[in-house]
Amino acid sequence: MNYEDLQAAAERDFENHDPSEVLASLADEHPADIAHHLDEWSSEAGLALLKRLDVARQAKVFGYLDDERQLEWAEQLPSEALVELVSEMNADERADLVAEFPETLQQLLYGKLEREEAEDIQRLVAYEEETAGAIMTSDVVSLHDRMTVQEALDSLRDQAPDSETIYRAYVVDDHDHLVGAIRLQNLIFARRDRPITELMESNALAVHVTDDQEEVAKQIAKYDILAVPVVDDDDRLVGMITHDDALDVVQDEATEDIHSFGAVSDLPISVRDAPLTTMYRKRIGWLILLVFGALFSSGGIAYFEDTISAYVALVFFLPMLIGSAGNAGSQAATLMVRALALGDVQIKDWGIMIGRELLVALALGVTMALAVSSIGIFRGGPDVAIVVAATMLIVVIFGSLLGMSLPFVLQQLKVDPATASAPLVATMADAGGVIIYFGIATMVLGLPASPA
Amino acid sequence: MNYEDLQAAAERDFENHDPSEVLASLADEHPADIAHHLDEWSSEAGLALLKRLDVARQAKVFGYLDDERQLEWAEQLPSEALVELVSEMNADERADLVAEFPETLQQLLYGKLEREEAEDIQRLVAYEEETAGAIMTSDVVSLHDRMTVQEALDSLRDQAPDSETIYRAYVVDDHDHLVGAIRLQNLIFARRDRPITELMESNALAVHVTDDQEEVAKQIAKYDILAVPVVDDDDRLVGMITHDDALDVVQDEATEDIHSFGAVSDLPISVRDAPLTTMYRKRIGWLILLVFGALFSSGGIAYFEDTISAYVALVFFLPMLIGSAGNAGSQAATLMVRALALGDVQIKDWGIMIGRELLVALALGVTMALAVSSIGIFRGGPDVAIVVAATMLIVVIFGSLLGMSLPFVLQQLKVDPATASAPLVATMADAGGVIIYFGIATMVLGLPASPA
Repeated sequence: MNYEDLQAAAERDFENHDPSEVLASLADEHPADIAHHLDEWSSEAGLALLKRLDVARQAKVFGYLDDERQLEWAEQLPSEALVELVSEMNADERADLVAEFPETLQQLLYGKLEREEAEDIQRLVAYEEETAGAIMTSDVVSLHDRMTVQEALDSLRDQAPDSETIYRAYVVDDHDHLVGAIRLQNLIFARRDRPITELMESNALAVHVTDDQEEVAKQIAKYDILAVPVVDDDDRLVGMITHDDALDVVQDEATEDIHSFGAVSDLPISVRDAPLTTMYRKRIGWLILLVFGALFSSGGIAYFEDTISAYVALVFFLPMLIGSAGNAGSQAATLMVRALALGDVQIKDWGIMIGRELLVALALGVTMALAVSSIGIFRGGPDVAIVVAATMLIVVIFGSLLGMSLPFVLQQLKVDPATASAPLVATMADAGGVIIYFGIATMVLGLPASPA
Repeated sequence: MNYEDLQAAAERDFENHDPSEVLASLADEHPADIAHHLDEWSSEAGLALLKRLDVARQAKVFGYLDDERQLEWAEQLPSEALVELVSEMNADERADLVAEFPETLQQLLYGKLEREEAEDIQRLVAYEEETAGAIMTSDVVSLHDRMTVQEALDSLRDQAPDSETIYRAYVVDDHDHLVGAIRLQNLIFARRDRPITELMESNALAVHVTDDQEEVAKQIAKYDILAVPVVDDDDRLVGMITHDDALDVVQDEATEDIHSFGAVSDLPISVRDAPLTTMYRKRIGWLILLVFGALFSSGGIAYFEDTISAYVALVFFLPMLIGSAGNAGSQAATLMVRALALGDVQIKDWGIMIGRELLVALALGVTMALAVSSIGIFRGGPDVAIVVAATMLIVVIFGSLLGMSLPFVLQQLKVDPATASAPLVATMADAGGVIIYFGIATMVLGLPASPA
């Protein structure tokens, strides 16, 4: 049965007041799909259905709902049901949820949860956003370094139900210091009486709780690993970050960069569901800032008003020339923003990159100059063609170097390089382009410049 | 020892002709790190070091080198060494490598490899790029549906050395049809004489060999799974795609989208290492296209030349107004491109999104109109202020709707929505902005429009 049929069937069922049948039709579905179905219902109907699932399944489904829906429903659940649900959820997912709760609800929850669970949540909630601590789970399998393979397998079996994965287990000493990592694969095919220290990788990669989530995802991507252990200042094992978390981080960071590059402030919720006032707020700041940025172009135009009055035909070429400066700049910025995000290029490569960009921009500029000089001859004769071609060459190089450098400067200033958005680079290139263009025109065509 | 020290030490060693010591210093490193070190050496020295690794390690390290380096070294290796290396490599990595080989080298290799291996490579190489078939590995664990748990574990042990992961195994019938999936975790804790069909998930998610890689990655991300099986037209198990492949796909697709959005043609190699001619080629096409796009703006300016001559002060506001149209458009395009890529928004949502965008753009336009009208009064009096404010309101709405719609149109035309790049949207918005601006100015200020 395809989705439309299922939905239609479910709606018919629900009109006839038989949510049990709706649930029966969802019984075999993956929790991610059930979450998707529930989300398509009205908030009331969805919550009513959720409540009828057993608590283990509720917790799984809940983890796949989006943040707003989670919060909305959590606040509507009776507190006993909420406590039960939170107890069942994955350590990392529930910490993300509780972090969004109003203070009073958090306190209520901490009071009713078992002490150990409450402390676990409080610890995870305390980590700063976008750090390893904030995305890790504390549901990690730890094995003692004096165990044998048999003891380790027994311990794995006990820990399995509460662990996010048992395929990677971490070995700790008496003081919980991380001493190694071990793969389930190696354990199950090993002689049962061997000490696990013989099987473990002792120089296991680990990340620190305060490491940036992007760095952690890069590590997981680089080494193609299933999970990475997280340690605190004293090298004690405190959690683990798994491949699916890394995938989420990579996706979220790409979204953040793409939005930022289009001059939209970070929008962590779906563009389809976000309140219109949020959409307005995420965009107006940049638009206003850029309009005032454009005043520099206007200032340039005002300064050269006499030149423009005397030679209105010059305005014809203005969009082409300043547009090209912005386009070349956007290209260069794009390449740098992405290369910096992937770690392909680092701050120390600025010198090399400037050199490379200069050569590429020179070639681009010459090609573009040839392309517009023909239009220049046609529209305004040889003098104008020379002005236009020279301007094009210079503004393409100017725009490219500007677009290439800005992300480095921002990175150096600890600002996200993706803030060097296409519109920002274009606005800056415009201002430079106006001055270069009319400056050259005034020189070549011999018109006096006078302040407006 | 940090990286600089290691590198310095290695260079000293190598000058003294003792690559063994260099290798000894790398012995405990992860293959990804060894690949990184080798890449920092000259091509000759790196290859010399690689050759001294044992073949299993060679194959692992090789898999982490970038494509160009792989190809370069593969062509320099003696054919016996190459055959040995290729035999040892992961099925998916070696297929990617061989696909890049010149035809003669491919044939040579197929002649020298064992028949089964040669056929496996040929099959994988044949799948179209960016499909599930092209990124999958054929190193997948398959279990027969009549096996018991004990038989399955024995089979896993045999298959383990050649498999990319044994944590997910797939159950097939006599005709290799996929009938279910099973987790190692469930096998090892089950009674040894149980049939595995009792433990397997029978409605296992699977993808088709011709599915787009992006869709596959979305599935893995959605369901937080370790791997997904790949089937052919007859539902036979032919391979598997693992979480690390999904992560690579997500990263590559994000890079492609970001580049595309900055009007750079797809650049699959590092911007730091790409030949300058490649960099030129990836950029010049869009720059030329956009310059001719800007001719529409120029045409608008030519059409209204009399208005402009009579009222040169209007040029002052040109960058602000057409810039704002482009900026609002870039924002809207950014949001849509990303939402379409993530599947947050689909073609069928166009109607809703137009409605939402209209309201947001109206609010943005009113705010922007107020912001520029004050500048308008100051620079040109009430009449100009009215022209400028009305233009701003209309161009922001125009740019927003354009930027929002273009990605949908492209998606509908089966073109990557990210082709609706910030520069393209800005160029189109510019042309509209010029006509709207001078059109309104001509109407309000009562100047005659005449063709230039």
